[in-house]
Amino acid sequence: MYRTAALELILHTEIPISKAMGIRVASYDGSRLKLAAPLAPNTNHKSTAFGGSLYSLAVLCGWGLLHLKLAEAKLHKHIVIQESTIRHLHPVEHDPHAECRLDNDAFEHFLRTLKKHGRARLSLDVTISEGKRPAVEFSGRYVVNG
Amino acid sequence: MYRTAALELILHTEIPISKAMGIRVASYDGSRLKLAAPLAPNTNHKSTAFGGSLYSLAVLCGWGLLHLKLAEAKLHKHIVIQESTIRHLHPVEHDPHAECRLDNDAFEHFLRTLKKHGRARLSLDVTISEGKRPAVEFSGRYVVNG
Repeated sequence: MYRTAALELILHTEIPISKAMGIRVASYDGSRLKLAAPLAPNTNHKSTAFGGSLYSLAVLCGWGLLHLKLAEAKLHKHIVIQESTIRHLHPVEHDPHAECRLDNDAFEHFLRTLKKHGRARLSLDVTISEGKRPAVEFSGRYVVNG
Repeated sequence: MYRTAALELILHTEIPISKAMGIRVASYDGSRLKLAAPLAPNTNHKSTAFGGSLYSLAVLCGWGLLHLKLAEAKLHKHIVIQESTIRHLHPVEHDPHAECRLDNDAFEHFLRTLKKHGRARLSLDVTISEGKRPAVEFSGRYVVNG
């Protein structure tokens, strides 16, 4: 299994603002990736988490999961976000945690399309929770090619 | 007119990641706010602008315009983003510039609702361009209360 430490290093090296945000890889079990960030560098005027930081955490959670799954499939492709929606249910008052879980059937279909056409799209949902309560819902469509 | 230098200070003080991103207020003419950021601290793995940074620039452009207009109306309220969609048309390969323009009729209606109920919502569109070409379209619904 591709190392999560390597993912954290890639994020911090290639996307420097993720290091300024203090984003870290919290866990990965083969189909579910969790990222976390401290609140302090990501606060807003209300001392809750800034919406832009929450978006960054969510979009990187989906990107990171896709990066790990493609590396396991030995496919080294470009992954970019095409379109996304983010909905705020509650303010986030503590360190935010993001979670993205893969739908295995959708991923297998995506992989077949990618191998056949060299390009494919996958939609991923990410939830940011505070304690056990979902606070943010993100849905993003990623395009993979190259 | 509320000073744009004050807005930049508020962003950098109250939303520290905006300072790490190097966000600055480029111009404001009473109904149109432009924010800019350097590419270097906001790059991604493809050496173009990171989607999370583009989102942050866009959401703060809408927030900043609303903040300025409310200050001019002597209304000191909380502004939070409720829901937003962002669409990437092209990669951004140079310093990104965001622009948000106010629809005066919609703003007047929003102000009346806010004064009557103490709470109102306003949808704002932000475009991030590269040269003269739109590269990113953002649409956000902001909630104002307090």
